[in-house]
Amino acid sequence: MSFPGPSLIDFAARALTQTGTDGDAARVVAELLVEADLLGHGTHGIDLLASYVAELERGTMLGTGEPDILRDHGAIAHWDGRWLSGVRLIAQAIDTALEKASRYGLGAVSIRRAHHTACLQAYLERATQRGMMVIIASSDPRSATVAPFGGLDPVLGPDPLALGIPTHGDPILIDMSSSITTNGMVARIAATGGLLPGPWLQDNAGRPSADPKVLSASPPGSMLLAGGQDHGHKGFGMALAVEALSQGLSGHGRANAEPRWSASVFVQVIDPAAFSGLDDFADQAEALVRLCHGARPHPDFTAVRLPGERALARKRHALQHGIVLHAYTLTKLTELSRRLGLSLPQPLAR
Amino acid sequence: MSFPGPSLIDFAARALTQTGTDGDAARVVAELLVEADLLGHGTHGIDLLASYVAELERGTMLGTGEPDILRDHGAIAHWDGRWLSGVRLIAQAIDTALEKASRYGLGAVSIRRAHHTACLQAYLERATQRGMMVIIASSDPRSATVAPFGGLDPVLGPDPLALGIPTHGDPILIDMSSSITTNGMVARIAATGGLLPGPWLQDNAGRPSADPKVLSASPPGSMLLAGGQDHGHKGFGMALAVEALSQGLSGHGRANAEPRWSASVFVQVIDPAAFSGLDDFADQAEALVRLCHGARPHPDFTAVRLPGERALARKRHALQHGIVLHAYTLTKLTELSRRLGLSLPQPLAR
Repeated sequence: MSFPGPSLIDFAARALTQTGTDGDAARVVAELLVEADLLGHGTHGIDLLASYVAELERGTMLGTGEPDILRDHGAIAHWDGRWLSGVRLIAQAIDTALEKASRYGLGAVSIRRAHHTACLQAYLERATQRGMMVIIASSDPRSATVAPFGGLDPVLGPDPLALGIPTHGDPILIDMSSSITTNGMVARIAATGGLLPGPWLQDNAGRPSADPKVLSASPPGSMLLAGGQDHGHKGFGMALAVEALSQGLSGHGRANAEPRWSASVFVQVIDPAAFSGLDDFADQAEALVRLCHGARPHPDFTAVRLPGERALARKRHALQHGIVLHAYTLTKLTELSRRLGLSLPQPLAR
Repeated sequence: MSFPGPSLIDFAARALTQTGTDGDAARVVAELLVEADLLGHGTHGIDLLASYVAELERGTMLGTGEPDILRDHGAIAHWDGRWLSGVRLIAQAIDTALEKASRYGLGAVSIRRAHHTACLQAYLERATQRGMMVIIASSDPRSATVAPFGGLDPVLGPDPLALGIPTHGDPILIDMSSSITTNGMVARIAATGGLLPGPWLQDNAGRPSADPKVLSASPPGSMLLAGGQDHGHKGFGMALAVEALSQGLSGHGRANAEPRWSASVFVQVIDPAAFSGLDDFADQAEALVRLCHGARPHPDFTAVRLPGERALARKRHALQHGIVLHAYTLTKLTELSRRLGLSLPQPLAR
């Protein structure tokens, strides 16, 4: 069944407001969850709503108030997120960084103690639509599923990095983890008893494996960094950069041994207009896209696709034909609607 | 034969001054070339001196004057490097970015038309020694040896990214290309007729290969991005980010079809003191290093090493025992010393 995006946003905003989220913040979170669904990332979209509501009800996610501004000067700000929704915090941080970048050429916000950050790709157009480049680095100081390059024990997180690059046409929307695969994908495949598409894990003795079970073994195996056992120093460099930007600058990371789950986040915006100008920037980005598209595809591929290209095509389709929700998401939303006494959006007629 | 670093710096500075480089700039270039030697990157150190002198004599590298400042406001500057040495330009850009970061929390400089940039790792301590984080992205708009993920034709460059992260002890010095291997390594192995350590290339039909000859075939093969044919979207994201930062912001890239070789460079400095503070930052970085060092090594490794760790150990050794120059470097320097009438430094007694 498919649903019009706006009705899903209304439903999510009402559910979040009713369980204690400030109205404006609820709207932002609802929009960005549904944005993830539009882009085709169903596991990081409105599927998360029920768990967010549960966290609000338990008081482990905070619904009201603003982040504490610990520092704000020049091109930077440094916030304590107080376990407010990571979704609204990142959106707010992008808005703040956009303002600072308009003024100084660059703007950045570091956030400690953000609640769940959902889909990083969903935030990028908030900046690229205004002709700005944006970078988001996020990590959980307690996450330890990924082994350092050359090591066996999981001590790092998947450490995702996202970048939005404006062009004259569709933006480039990069969203990637430093590890080859993600905790979420491994958990999903583990639940069905299947194997990963490649040997993206290693067991506790360092043998490459595609079997999610090696992560829950005792002692546990680990996820491999991008480049794997062959050239995983690439993913290692990226993971260290992400952890330094997110946990280092926010001052909230592995040194604290914080007992409670949270995300440390770094958001930066760069204004091309401050440098050579947005037109020049977009000309270069456009030329790059054209060259990549012009490359003959490898026999295993139908075309060279830029990061975000497939997601933006899905979004165009979903804006016209509605968002198809997975059965498991629909079950969760139906249950939530009953419990909160909210009517579920009407599916589109086929 | 090994030589004391300071005598090599003096020799290089004299050679550069004598062939038309301003005194201060010559000193900076000489110091940074020898810094690369100290860190153990012999191919990107004083070995380059003879070619730099040749470029100065031909007028293809400019020795005198300053970059044109196209924009300078707030946290950013935008320069035309006029084919001045990329080495002195990057050093100068870091100094400018350091000043801006001290004031605004962040500082960045984009440079178009820089001459050769040598070893990116050699610049990083210039910032980390002052408690700052530094990022350098560099690319050559005409370089096309790397295929986009899913593609067959080489349209991208190796697109290196370097990051310096201060800690309480040794800094983390990341310097990595977006491609698995580099143009330089492929050329070196091609010259000896050997094979790469892994299938880091593909031939023109997309078959993985370790043979450098596939790159000079007609039509040519290509270098693979980090992650290879399995998960090369990671390296692809990195390459696109590097090209957007360097060529996009400088407004000088693939859209220009510039006939003359040059580098486009982006340099950014982040001041941890502006965020949670340098102590907090270094605590987090230190904890990260400790966790990585604490991981048991994979059977194929003797220990988990952080990026730059081996290079800094080499530097400590070379500062005490001198820099060992390769025979081919020594031959070039001997020839250069004769031609310019400069006396070669005395090797250290064994």
